[in-house]
Amino acid sequence: MVQTMAQGRNETGIAAAMGILKQQFGERFHTGASICEQHAHTTTWIVNQPPDGVVFARSTQEVSEVVRICAAHKVAVIPFGTGTSLEGHVNAPAGGISIDVSQMNAVVEVNAGDLDCRVQPGVTRMALNTHLRDQGLFFPIDPGADASIGGMAATRASGTNAVRYGTMKDNVLSLEVVMANGEVIRTASRARKSSAGYDLTRLMVGSEGTLGIITEVTLRLQGIPEAMSAASCSFPSVEAACETVMAVIQYGLPVARIELLDALVVKAVNSYSKLTLPETPLLLLEFHGSNAGVAEQAETFGSLAADFGGSGYAATTSAEERNKLWQARHDAYWAMLALRPGCKAVATDVCVPISRLAEAVVATNDKASELELIAPIVGHAGDGNFHASVLLDMDNADEVARAQTFVSWLNNFAIELGGTCTGEHGIGQGKRPYLVKELGGAVDVMRAIKRALDPDDIMNPGKILPDGRTDL
Amino acid sequence: MVQTMAQGRNETGIAAAMGILKQQFGERFHTGASICEQHAHTTTWIVNQPPDGVVFARSTQEVSEVVRICAAHKVAVIPFGTGTSLEGHVNAPAGGISIDVSQMNAVVEVNAGDLDCRVQPGVTRMALNTHLRDQGLFFPIDPGADASIGGMAATRASGTNAVRYGTMKDNVLSLEVVMANGEVIRTASRARKSSAGYDLTRLMVGSEGTLGIITEVTLRLQGIPEAMSAASCSFPSVEAACETVMAVIQYGLPVARIELLDALVVKAVNSYSKLTLPETPLLLLEFHGSNAGVAEQAETFGSLAADFGGSGYAATTSAEERNKLWQARHDAYWAMLALRPGCKAVATDVCVPISRLAEAVVATNDKASELELIAPIVGHAGDGNFHASVLLDMDNADEVARAQTFVSWLNNFAIELGGTCTGEHGIGQGKRPYLVKELGGAVDVMRAIKRALDPDDIMNPGKILPDGRTDL
Repeated sequence: MVQTMAQGRNETGIAAAMGILKQQFGERFHTGASICEQHAHTTTWIVNQPPDGVVFARSTQEVSEVVRICAAHKVAVIPFGTGTSLEGHVNAPAGGISIDVSQMNAVVEVNAGDLDCRVQPGVTRMALNTHLRDQGLFFPIDPGADASIGGMAATRASGTNAVRYGTMKDNVLSLEVVMANGEVIRTASRARKSSAGYDLTRLMVGSEGTLGIITEVTLRLQGIPEAMSAASCSFPSVEAACETVMAVIQYGLPVARIELLDALVVKAVNSYSKLTLPETPLLLLEFHGSNAGVAEQAETFGSLAADFGGSGYAATTSAEERNKLWQARHDAYWAMLALRPGCKAVATDVCVPISRLAEAVVATNDKASELELIAPIVGHAGDGNFHASVLLDMDNADEVARAQTFVSWLNNFAIELGGTCTGEHGIGQGKRPYLVKELGGAVDVMRAIKRALDPDDIMNPGKILPDGRTDL
Repeated sequence: MVQTMAQGRNETGIAAAMGILKQQFGERFHTGASICEQHAHTTTWIVNQPPDGVVFARSTQEVSEVVRICAAHKVAVIPFGTGTSLEGHVNAPAGGISIDVSQMNAVVEVNAGDLDCRVQPGVTRMALNTHLRDQGLFFPIDPGADASIGGMAATRASGTNAVRYGTMKDNVLSLEVVMANGEVIRTASRARKSSAGYDLTRLMVGSEGTLGIITEVTLRLQGIPEAMSAASCSFPSVEAACETVMAVIQYGLPVARIELLDALVVKAVNSYSKLTLPETPLLLLEFHGSNAGVAEQAETFGSLAADFGGSGYAATTSAEERNKLWQARHDAYWAMLALRPGCKAVATDVCVPISRLAEAVVATNDKASELELIAPIVGHAGDGNFHASVLLDMDNADEVARAQTFVSWLNNFAIELGGTCTGEHGIGQGKRPYLVKELGGAVDVMRAIKRALDPDDIMNPGKILPDGRTDL
């Protein structure tokens, strides 16, 4: 009888694969407890589930070899970039081998004339942007963390710029992927668009390592805009801020960023980043374009915001002031943690139709109060995407139970509003309970694809699919 | 032994299914030769391969019933919208049942606040835009023909606006799909972005009815811009025109349309549409935005074009003049046909990285001359996508053979330049020979998905996949 992941650890297979990997990769194959633990984690209450060993791969060929060895012994493989995912994507519930691609960090080529580039999966987004700057180009997707491009593709990441530039699904032209049998495929050509067969690029983007391991990414790039300006605008209520966002989207104003901070986050940010913003709901904005275009966008936003009681609005093209504002936004996580020293922040992520955003954020604030939880909210409001971060004493079992109730309520509520249980974090382990509620029978289609492409369930098992063979 | 499509017509199954369909659908099930022939065609040299019968479905439930009946008897089902596809997508090489969804033409809901709508698959893009106009909204994808939204999704259509607004892959939020077993799934929520599991929306977009039949489409919409202007600009050579396009894209100028017409097409258009354009390569442009933004874009384009010898450039915001220019572009097909009365135009479609566009167009012109063919070229230049339309006497076997050589050469050449054998027409029957050359082992992954989701190969067999079970 074939041993599958659902039956738990395949001890014999793991021992055999580890012996071969030790021989083949020598010092680049690690089995120490500390390195294995570093290669597993979640930011939820799911425990650390370390792999049995970690290979630091240096080439597509090496990734393929590791997968072939593991496939032969029916051992799980878990890809690892920077480990900045949140929902347990890098945990190894059935043990197995973590393939760390952080040393595959070359920018292979930049085609300035085509606004595209080809990178290895371990390149981080900041390293890429540093590499591109001299050519007047940038890669716009910004999930906050300095994540690897491979990981960002695997989780369909997005972040603050998505309202203007889209998500990873919109910015990956093509992928090189090692499949479950070790075969290496390229999903698409470098053409900007194609109707040639099934869109394997988009199938792999967001598949979280469960269908294959991404070993090279071809990305679309953008020219650095002639001008950028930033602004903040305070609102009397979350509703007023969200109504402004809806007006902006309906108007077609091409904002590059439009971020919502609730009053509690503004308070945290003021304290942490030494700012003096009014402690009411806030929108943070960025405009990209020509000098005249940016000025016009900023002015249009001002008049839209005024209709909803926006105040304290001023746009600035000063790079210093712009960076200060966005640094404060990026530091919001640390600022929130500082609201309750010693706590852990469990950030959950939902996305709703924009017309339901105000209702969703208000109800989420109310639910947190009802459960006596502190759960500040930040949102990529232009997409209807927001995060509630529960500030939690993990040693307080009652509080953890209330937080679990809260997270479960929020995910289900977002789905009931016609939204999704994850706008950008991915399903991983933590969001699996919500997938069937959101997508019903479509999950059976996902299972059929998983079985077809990974019949022995070795590719990052226990992620995405909520039950059956991969449920652990 | 299971009878599959690759073994040809399943006569017993077809007879049995037809009997049941006759009972169930009465007058809406047609088997007359003329209606069957109208439901099959290509615009290539592939012969008309009519289905055995046509059901005019009126609901998702009815589509599901037809698929269940056909599945039970292992009979092919071929979805049909407006029949405007080019590469034999609606042909029935193994016979079977055409499911015509043209009567499923309701706009189910428009959510103006979210800039989205839900439509049945038989709604055409022009009908949708007529419906939306009063609300200040529009759906930007324009493949030329008044295609159905379901068909546009199924073939991953795009067209003149894609450079600004993307293709169907970028503008479909969610799909309802009838799978090969008759089950109905919804691929995604209405959220503007999601990381919830495999991207089945994008897998279905462009799958040409081979994985399921689209029965409802949720689309992203756009606000009608405050201002639009149009322009034309003549160039001394194709290279100069293409270099201008590259400069525009690198500059990040958000052109809504940037179309290339080679000198022969300009000549045809002048004659057909009574224009007096210089008979040299031409770019046709459209700018969308605010009044000031559109003026600025037009001015920026002018200065970029001047660097490459652009002449006769003038932008106009007059709706009448704009419509006249774009009508001429849309009539280019008829204008080309008029170059050689009685001929057939076999349009082939490739897409290359923009940096290779000039080289590709020049080589294509040269190859046509070498083969003594008339093959005018129009291109969605901002995407690197262009069409060569061979004007052909279909009764001249030698000429048809040379045209086949030409089309085969062009598809292979585009792939060698790092491009694709189809930017927007799809693979259908006609492009199958090129898919493996373009994507290699990735085609095996497509086959595995096809087998997993349609084990009896009843969903539009003989399309996309180049050999094996579906080769006919």
